[in-house]
Amino acid sequence: MMIPRLTIIGVGLIGGSLAQALKAKQLCQEVVGCGRQITNLQKAVELGVIDRFTTAPAEAVKEADMVVIAVPLGSMGAIFANIDQHLPENAIITDVGSSKGSVVADAQTYLPLHYSRFVPAHPIAGGEKSGVTAAIKDLFINRYIIITPTDNTQKDACQQVNAMWSSTGANVVEMSVEHHDEVLAATSHLPHVLAYNLVHTLATLEQKREIFRYSAGGFRDFTRIASSDPTMWRDICLANQPAILQMIDIFSQDLAKLRQAIADKDSKALMKIFADAKQARDNALNR
Amino acid sequence: MMIPRLTIIGVGLIGGSLAQALKAKQLCQEVVGCGRQITNLQKAVELGVIDRFTTAPAEAVKEADMVVIAVPLGSMGAIFANIDQHLPENAIITDVGSSKGSVVADAQTYLPLHYSRFVPAHPIAGGEKSGVTAAIKDLFINRYIIITPTDNTQKDACQQVNAMWSSTGANVVEMSVEHHDEVLAATSHLPHVLAYNLVHTLATLEQKREIFRYSAGGFRDFTRIASSDPTMWRDICLANQPAILQMIDIFSQDLAKLRQAIADKDSKALMKIFADAKQARDNALNR
Repeated sequence: MMIPRLTIIGVGLIGGSLAQALKAKQLCQEVVGCGRQITNLQKAVELGVIDRFTTAPAEAVKEADMVVIAVPLGSMGAIFANIDQHLPENAIITDVGSSKGSVVADAQTYLPLHYSRFVPAHPIAGGEKSGVTAAIKDLFINRYIIITPTDNTQKDACQQVNAMWSSTGANVVEMSVEHHDEVLAATSHLPHVLAYNLVHTLATLEQKREIFRYSAGGFRDFTRIASSDPTMWRDICLANQPAILQMIDIFSQDLAKLRQAIADKDSKALMKIFADAKQARDNALNR
Repeated sequence: MMIPRLTIIGVGLIGGSLAQALKAKQLCQEVVGCGRQITNLQKAVELGVIDRFTTAPAEAVKEADMVVIAVPLGSMGAIFANIDQHLPENAIITDVGSSKGSVVADAQTYLPLHYSRFVPAHPIAGGEKSGVTAAIKDLFINRYIIITPTDNTQKDACQQVNAMWSSTGANVVEMSVEHHDEVLAATSHLPHVLAYNLVHTLATLEQKREIFRYSAGGFRDFTRIASSDPTMWRDICLANQPAILQMIDIFSQDLAKLRQAIADKDSKALMKIFADAKQARDNALNR
């Protein structure tokens, strides 16, 4: 796989790391960056992440072979609308959004000329750090990349996006849009909502200064994801709203039961919940 | 400060690490371990954490100068009852429980002869690992140790416990029992309840295998504390019940508001909650 001209719209942690990974393996000839902040784009050139830049998406996609859109979910529609008329006929377009249903709907509406060349994708990577200065070429090694093709997605476009991500050291898997959004609501979106909510709750308490002072390593780990980019997470909550609401409701019902067990001093029920949870996590993640 | 004979009842991560820290600085002459599992106590001798052991608390405290009780909160009362008649007159007794109100109440009831020599204490250290094999002498460096003396606690006993913990490299602070229990409910007990509940919820979902497979680093960090010892946390929930119930209720009310903002697609409200939370955490913990 060789990408003569790669365009990255949104040169942040994900877009920047992808460009670096492909450059390190000499799998692209030229990387064109596009974004709104010129200082950020200049920084990206200095860091060698991109070769040149423009702030105009329509300009950025000219003669592009692969266009990767790595902007917050709320900006996807506008980017699609800006580039649709200017994309080369065979260009492949893909994204890195954390919710796929909303992106596919936006593509259908705002990217009609190239909808079949659009490959929805989501790299399960990143973290609370953001921006191009945090970008590293090894970010995707052993990470999952989920591709969610629709009935309209052309096979060769899908294969190219798969090959691009595979070359970064990631494991590429395919699933349906709906399934992706349900799984991610559980494994990523709900935890972020809970972490943000916890920190927000504690910050409004009178003893907040002491609360943070006497927090231990466990609290630091538990709340790390609450340092993630607020814009990105606002957009995820809006984009994957139904699945996230459902997960909040399931979680809240279970929390009410756990609260009741504490209120009842039901030692046996508490022990079972905690032991089951520990076992599930140890089995799944402590291998 | 020199402790001729130190007795550790409950030779796990905390008790074991304390013994190692004091031994490393040659601040105690003999460490007597006490617990229920002989294999664990033998292991502790092999590791050089304790010098000798007995499974009988009454025997373990004979001629002890300092007795550290590091057992789950639910076992405190029974230990107090076992040792009260056998403690030397001037022995100092202290504990490491994560909730102080219940321990003080147990001491009042079951340790009447030595209640004024009992110094309630809580090292904010440890984590999801447990057992003497995880013990390390540096566990308490730069950690907080909260001492919660009552009106009855003798000054010299308090000073000795303070000196013991200070020698491990920890920062020792004093506060009231009630204040400790409120602060810890917020900063430690609530996060553990949420982490256990989240993992328990996800483990009951149909897609649980995929949920854990596609979890990223953020999820791993977020749920790490759900791998903590279930017995210890059952006991904490029972011991600090009122403060924990109150924190669950405040959290749940705030979560309901956040849910409503998502349901309403209230972009502005979501942005404010997430940005405020990020700022609070960054200010408090990312220094």
